[in-house]
Amino acid sequence: MSLDNNWFTEIHADIGSAFSLQLKEKVFSQQSEYQLVEVYDTVGFGKFMVIDGCTMVSTRENFIYHEMLTHPALFTHPDPRHVAIIGGGDCGTLREVLRHPGVQKCTQIDIDEVVTRASELHFPELCESNNDPRAELLFVDGIQWMQDAPGGSLDLIIVDSTDPVGPGEVLFTPKFFRACHDALADGGLIVQQSESPLAHLELIRRMYASYREAGFSDVQTLFFPQPIYPTGWWSASMACKQGSFDGFREADARAKDFETRYYNADIHRAALAQPEFFRRALVDQE
Amino acid sequence: MSLDNNWFTEIHADIGSAFSLQLKEKVFSQQSEYQLVEVYDTVGFGKFMVIDGCTMVSTRENFIYHEMLTHPALFTHPDPRHVAIIGGGDCGTLREVLRHPGVQKCTQIDIDEVVTRASELHFPELCESNNDPRAELLFVDGIQWMQDAPGGSLDLIIVDSTDPVGPGEVLFTPKFFRACHDALADGGLIVQQSESPLAHLELIRRMYASYREAGFSDVQTLFFPQPIYPTGWWSASMACKQGSFDGFREADARAKDFETRYYNADIHRAALAQPEFFRRALVDQE
Repeated sequence: MSLDNNWFTEIHADIGSAFSLQLKEKVFSQQSEYQLVEVYDTVGFGKFMVIDGCTMVSTRENFIYHEMLTHPALFTHPDPRHVAIIGGGDCGTLREVLRHPGVQKCTQIDIDEVVTRASELHFPELCESNNDPRAELLFVDGIQWMQDAPGGSLDLIIVDSTDPVGPGEVLFTPKFFRACHDALADGGLIVQQSESPLAHLELIRRMYASYREAGFSDVQTLFFPQPIYPTGWWSASMACKQGSFDGFREADARAKDFETRYYNADIHRAALAQPEFFRRALVDQE
Repeated sequence: MSLDNNWFTEIHADIGSAFSLQLKEKVFSQQSEYQLVEVYDTVGFGKFMVIDGCTMVSTRENFIYHEMLTHPALFTHPDPRHVAIIGGGDCGTLREVLRHPGVQKCTQIDIDEVVTRASELHFPELCESNNDPRAELLFVDGIQWMQDAPGGSLDLIIVDSTDPVGPGEVLFTPKFFRACHDALADGGLIVQQSESPLAHLELIRRMYASYREAGFSDVQTLFFPQPIYPTGWWSASMACKQGSFDGFREADARAKDFETRYYNADIHRAALAQPEFFRRALVDQE
C-alpha cells in the first residue's frame, strides 16, 4: 500500500521504520521564533500536533504519556509541593501534576509560547488547569531557568522534552542534570522521558551515567506504551537526589481522589518491571 | 515526508494510522494454496514476513510477542504436559513452549506449510526446536483438528492467530472456544492473542463474553509492547477451564533454567496489571 497526500508520515531513520496518521485537515500552522508548530485534525487520533515535522501529541493517546511522566514520580516523592516542568508546552503534564492537592506550585518552563497557544486552541482539555492559581507558565529558556533556580527550591523536576537531538540534546547532559540536582531540595526527584527501550537502549544507558555523574544517587526506569512514537514503546527515567528508591506511596495512589485513564497503583508497580534484556544491559551493570 | 518504493506500508484503516518498514530486498515470495507469503530483508528490523500484505513477524522484535504468548500461560498452569498451538506457523511459539522441560508434547497446527518453510529459510532461530522429538508439526485445518481432538487431552491451547477478520475470524467465536474447552483436561488453560487494548477494546470485550459462553470460568489479559502491530501495544487473553486465576508458579518462573529476552517473573506479574480504562471497561463489569 502507499500513502497519498492525506497522510502525515514521520520517518525514524535510525531504525528504518515510519509511523503515519491519516489527516482530515490542517487546523493550525505558525512559524514561531523557534520552530514550525502545526496541528492537524486526523481520521482516528483526534487532533495531532507536529513540531518541525516531528510527531508530538495526539488527542487519542496522550493520556498514557502524560499520566506516566507525572503520577509515578509524584507518588514516589513523600510530599511534593514545588514542581517544575521543563518543556511540556502542551500543558498536559501540568494538568496531571495539579491533580495532586499537595502540590503548592507548579512552574512550566517552555521556551515557545506558540506551542501553548496552539494547545489552548486545539487541546483545550490539556490546558484546563492553566489558570489554576498554583500554575505558573513561563516562556523562557528552561536550561537557564534551572541554572538560576535557588538551590533546594524544588521537590520534583519533570523534563518533558523533545528527543535528544538538536535543541533537546542539552537536556540529557550531566551539566543540565547538575543544575537540576542543585535546584532540588533534600529528598528531591527528577523524572525525564527517556525514549524507546527497544530503539534507544544506549541513550538510556548514557542517561543513567549522566544522572550519576551529576550527583544523583539512584535511578529507575518506567516502561509504558506510546503509540505514536518510534516502536510504540516508551520510557521515563527517574533519579533521586539522595538515598535509593524504595517503593512508592502505594496507599495514597490507591486512595487518589482524581480520575486517570491509564495510571493506577497496579500500573505504577508494573511499569517498574524491567524486561530481561534491559535488566541484563543496565541494572546488572550498576 | 513521503515514502518511496523501498518501504513496505501496512495501513490500519480502522484507526487511520499506518506502519512502515524500510526494505533492502524481497528474499521470499510464494503464493501458497491459501495466501501470498513474502519475506523481506529490512534496514532496521532484520527479516520481515508479510502474509497477504499484512505484517506478521520481524527478527528484531518477535521475542516480545512469542515470549508473552507462551511463558505466562505455561507458568500459570500447574503442570503443562500436552500443548497445542493453533496457527503459529513461523514456529517461534513452538520454540518457547519447548523451553519448558515438563512439556511432553507440543503439536503445532497451521494450515499453511509454506509459512513454516519460509520461516525455516529466513527465521532459522525461530525454527531451532522444530526437530525436537516432542514437537509435532501438522499442516491441516486447526479448527477441524480441535473439534476432533480427544476430550480432555490437552493442558494448554495457544491460539497464535491472525486478526479476527477473514480466515482468522472463526478463531474468536464461542463455537471454536467450545471445542477448545472440550479438548482441555481439568485445570486446562487457553491463551490467545487479543489485539490492541487501545484500538480493539470492543473485540477483547467480545472475547471475554465468548470465552464465558463456551464454558470457561475465568479470564485475564496480559499487556505487552508489539512494535510492528497497530498502536504498538498488544494483548493476549487467557481463560481457565474451571476455577479462577490465582497467581502463577512464580518460584518456578524465577528459577527457570532457560534464557529469555523480555519475559521474567516481574514482567509476568506486571503484564497482568490492568490500565485504568481497561479495568473500568471490562473488569468492573464482570
